[in-house]
Amino acid sequence: MICEFAGRWRRHILTLRINSRNIEPNMDNPFMARAIQLSMDNVRSGRGGPFGSVVVKNGVIIAEGANQVTSTNDPTAHAEMVAIREACKKLGVFDLEGCEIYTSCEPCPMCLGAIYWARLSRVYFANADADASRIGFDDSLIYRELAQPHSQRKIPMIQMMREEALVALRAWENKTNKIEY
Amino acid sequence: MICEFAGRWRRHILTLRINSRNIEPNMDNPFMARAIQLSMDNVRSGRGGPFGSVVVKNGVIIAEGANQVTSTNDPTAHAEMVAIREACKKLGVFDLEGCEIYTSCEPCPMCLGAIYWARLSRVYFANADADASRIGFDDSLIYRELAQPHSQRKIPMIQMMREEALVALRAWENKTNKIEY
Repeated sequence: MICEFAGRWRRHILTLRINSRNIEPNMDNPFMARAIQLSMDNVRSGRGGPFGSVVVKNGVIIAEGANQVTSTNDPTAHAEMVAIREACKKLGVFDLEGCEIYTSCEPCPMCLGAIYWARLSRVYFANADADASRIGFDDSLIYRELAQPHSQRKIPMIQMMREEALVALRAWENKTNKIEY
Repeated sequence: MICEFAGRWRRHILTLRINSRNIEPNMDNPFMARAIQLSMDNVRSGRGGPFGSVVVKNGVIIAEGANQVTSTNDPTAHAEMVAIREACKKLGVFDLEGCEIYTSCEPCPMCLGAIYWARLSRVYFANADADASRIGFDDSLIYRELAQPHSQRKIPMIQMMREEALVALRAWENKTNKIEY
């Protein structure tokens, strides 16, 4: 199964390399313009932070998202997460290979993690990580934390009961009718 | 506002240091036992991957989560994310300061990002990142990717239209009645 998973990644990466050729910078991109519009609308409406995203497939926006952390009491409801979840719901899939995400700001580690799990093919972003940090959204701190060993992270991470928990991983490994992701 | 945000982090980190004293390893912890039970149940039911989590506040489980990626078509529905979202919903908050998460496996970068955004006070985990990688859940690849510069990531990241997008960040900065998070 490891080989199979690695194979899926290899194919995905090969596709990405092919699709990455001949990328022209586009300063007036309608998809990014829509992501930015969503970020502006969100500040005006007060629904959440100044961030918007769209997921595009075959040149068409299939899902939109804006930050909803404070209006929905959901710390995971960043614009990218909302757009990814909506795109998957609309397409009835848990894998967005072949889709691209346009986001008004560089994704934080949570959102970038989600982008990898969803296997999006490309990420376009406008504001940089540092731009968000300057107004108080400290993605940089989280990026630095993830690079630290457990013992040096600000939120303590403590391991326990590994042997007991390994049983579930072994059960998954031996399960024949599982749906991999 | 940057100072205010930094202040919140400083207070949070100070609380974590105080609470981190005198931690005893506990090999028969009922909260972790429940997280492991959820991971086992999930393999049996086929609802998703072999992962379970619980959020604990004042010695009581306030929310549970198991991986639901394949059953709900949501690549972000990892056990930790499900438990965090449920805990916030129950408490009516977007900040879980003072709560702890027990998870059957070391959080992937997406979930660890969510744990930082939710300001959980401590993370207990059982299986290690490498244990999950061995059966095909390649968190390690995503950790390595996040540490790479944009140009060397497997999913291309392309910046565009920063000037246009900065307008939303400036609007947020100048907004007087905003809810910070």
